[in-house]
Amino acid sequence: MNHSLDRKAPHHIVIVGGGFGGLYAARALAKEPVRVTVVDRRNFHLFQPLLYQVATGILGPGEITAPLRHILRKQANATVLLGEVIDVDPDNRRIVLADGVLDYDTLIVAAGMRNHYHGHDAWEQSAPGLKSIEDSGWIRQKIFFAFEVAEREPDPEKRKPWLTFVVVGSGPTGVELTGMLAEIAKDTLKDDFRSFRPEDSEILLVDAAVRILPSFPQELSDKAKRSLGELGVHIRTGTKVTSIDDTGLTLQGPQGEERVEARTVLWAAGVSGSPLGARLAEKTGAALDRMGRIPVGPDLTVPGHPEIFVIGDLARIPGKDGNPLPGLAPVATQGGRYAARAIMKRLKGEGPPAPFAYFDKGTMAVIGRHAAVADIGPFHFGGIVAWLMWLFIHLMLLVNFESRLVVFIRWAFSYFTYSRGSRVLLALGTMRLPVTGAASCEAQPGNGREENRAG
Amino acid sequence: MNHSLDRKAPHHIVIVGGGFGGLYAARALAKEPVRVTVVDRRNFHLFQPLLYQVATGILGPGEITAPLRHILRKQANATVLLGEVIDVDPDNRRIVLADGVLDYDTLIVAAGMRNHYHGHDAWEQSAPGLKSIEDSGWIRQKIFFAFEVAEREPDPEKRKPWLTFVVVGSGPTGVELTGMLAEIAKDTLKDDFRSFRPEDSEILLVDAAVRILPSFPQELSDKAKRSLGELGVHIRTGTKVTSIDDTGLTLQGPQGEERVEARTVLWAAGVSGSPLGARLAEKTGAALDRMGRIPVGPDLTVPGHPEIFVIGDLARIPGKDGNPLPGLAPVATQGGRYAARAIMKRLKGEGPPAPFAYFDKGTMAVIGRHAAVADIGPFHFGGIVAWLMWLFIHLMLLVNFESRLVVFIRWAFSYFTYSRGSRVLLALGTMRLPVTGAASCEAQPGNGREENRAG
Repeated sequence: MNHSLDRKAPHHIVIVGGGFGGLYAARALAKEPVRVTVVDRRNFHLFQPLLYQVATGILGPGEITAPLRHILRKQANATVLLGEVIDVDPDNRRIVLADGVLDYDTLIVAAGMRNHYHGHDAWEQSAPGLKSIEDSGWIRQKIFFAFEVAEREPDPEKRKPWLTFVVVGSGPTGVELTGMLAEIAKDTLKDDFRSFRPEDSEILLVDAAVRILPSFPQELSDKAKRSLGELGVHIRTGTKVTSIDDTGLTLQGPQGEERVEARTVLWAAGVSGSPLGARLAEKTGAALDRMGRIPVGPDLTVPGHPEIFVIGDLARIPGKDGNPLPGLAPVATQGGRYAARAIMKRLKGEGPPAPFAYFDKGTMAVIGRHAAVADIGPFHFGGIVAWLMWLFIHLMLLVNFESRLVVFIRWAFSYFTYSRGSRVLLALGTMRLPVTGAASCEAQPGNGREENRAG
Repeated sequence: MNHSLDRKAPHHIVIVGGGFGGLYAARALAKEPVRVTVVDRRNFHLFQPLLYQVATGILGPGEITAPLRHILRKQANATVLLGEVIDVDPDNRRIVLADGVLDYDTLIVAAGMRNHYHGHDAWEQSAPGLKSIEDSGWIRQKIFFAFEVAEREPDPEKRKPWLTFVVVGSGPTGVELTGMLAEIAKDTLKDDFRSFRPEDSEILLVDAAVRILPSFPQELSDKAKRSLGELGVHIRTGTKVTSIDDTGLTLQGPQGEERVEARTVLWAAGVSGSPLGARLAEKTGAALDRMGRIPVGPDLTVPGHPEIFVIGDLARIPGKDGNPLPGLAPVATQGGRYAARAIMKRLKGEGPPAPFAYFDKGTMAVIGRHAAVADIGPFHFGGIVAWLMWLFIHLMLLVNFESRLVVFIRWAFSYFTYSRGSRVLLALGTMRLPVTGAASCEAQPGNGREENRAG
């Protein structure tokens, strides 16, 4: 343990998590005489804002990930370790991995959030959320497999639940997933099936709030609602989900209780802090908030532990209006850079850092082709301008040039041909999906389409 | 069942398998007054010749696959079904799926091959072969995870097996995998690790034959051997594998028995016919050959069953020299087109088709940067000309333009930056790999590299 700038035994900064917060903290320390170790249970940095495009087949996993050790390969003071951090030991200044321990002088916890089902953990099996690459693979599998089963199901009644898609939660992720589902059904799969019309699929967006995109200004909620309506999406606001299982879900809304038979239910209605947050709270006496976040001081450290920073989604940071800052990539990257500066100021004896101040560049959500909403300071706008801005900004934020080029090509093709390049379903045997309901083929596939249309 | 060209109840051709054989047969029937159903247990056509590049992180799965129903979407007479065919019932002219049955008038079986371990099925758990997208994911996981464990292993003795890579089988797939492994260790990961030098990895290519690439002319074997030698690969020919487990394998060669401790062993030493081939043989009285292939007549049908064609790798087709044709994409595509023509000739009453004649365009194998071998009729050559030819041909053979463009960009980046864009490891919890051996981190990562170099 040391707190000097001694080059022989440099100060050791351990960063847990290689997301936006952790990665930007590590990079901001590149030229400093410290030793940096980034620990993550994945070997890659994930560009989470585009994860919904992997889940819906526009992009492949390799296009929104970059190996952490490759990004940091030229940074001589940085080491990357693949490992799962399961506990923190602040008294001995070490973290506990599933298979080892690691000492630190300063710790930066950037462990992020996971899907949260508000006490209904069993729902996760039926309604995956979208936080990881694994999640995105599972969701893609569910979506495209549902259409495959529908093609083999001769009975329209039995087919309907396979062609009913429900997204729970109408924040940006929920809205983006819903818009993508509508485009898949209307455009991507238009000519692909013989026994039904994909454009007859039913797509539902459910939220307990009174309007969609509740964190956006009212006028943008209205714009988004109109855009989704044009895509044929049914919106149920003021509606709670009371149960979810493999065959559908039960809603409780203004019109009373309703059962919806749906084979594909996606969860975008809540996240909570990584389990490591709870361990850290227990060891430091910090009080987790309702979302499992750790309240940090103005310098992003845990009260009473100036050597432990918490940044990114896992930190509860009061904003200017008193509300906590939202879980967005810019909050995490700015927090990461701030933590690096604060540590170096302290090591150099330059006194305490100025409090962290978040510079809000605005938020956006994309709904579909030519449709997005942007909430940027005093400017609220939607339509094709917001959509083009969204495309450009996200392309520029991708971490390497190769991904930028490949993503650009995928978007261009997807735009002009309505296709989706990444629709790989794994072998039936390895799928995490029920194959019950996949019907007999005796109904002479290939003749069904016209019958179905007439009926 | 019908054998007319009646448009009301058209002749129904069922194709099992959407690989090169099945897909090209279906496409060749596009304008004919028949009904075509393609059944596959995957939803995509796989461009198998580039599968080793997915296994080694250059390409992503979406770049060498294309959804079958998307390829055939404009072909009005074709239906694509996702399903696993488990049996054939020639007497009733139907195939049996895991969850249904399907009647046919003519059947084209193009079910392909799977990895074969010559009676040692248990070896598959330790030494994956490379036949499917799932295989390629598993192999990629094994390769890149081994380096991750090595980074966390402070003991050089314990680290060595994680940095030893063995490929069993020196046909084109084995040689291509070996060349890629060498490039990963020497170039791709050059600066990525702190506690060891990836270029110190040991890469072994083992084959029971007396020379590598045994199906190629001697001079090309020699060229390939030289190229692999320059990449630092150790070649053991005339060497049999007598056992494989999770920690290594035992070799029996000219110098006697040898145990090699290796955490990554890849199998490229044998394939055999899909289990459906055995079912078909049993039902039709055909005699499977040693590799589980079905011997077909000169018109590619099963003797005694003119309504059942077998094409692609699963068919044993005598070549001009009496030897069976090799399991190559061109044999399958030509077989697929031939079967389509033969069926239509018969339906139109134009008499029996001329016997199938394979037009051999030659074979190639790529070894590494600027190194490949080509065996094209009387021309045997290697080096940069063969390598450029290989790149160009494979790019042109990709089924859609978007993939072609993306693969071209990936290759260009990989060539100029030595990087590999697709190195995603899934979460530790979901890995099919042992995590034992992943050591404690107490050995102060970040200091190890120089020690290792000195030691």
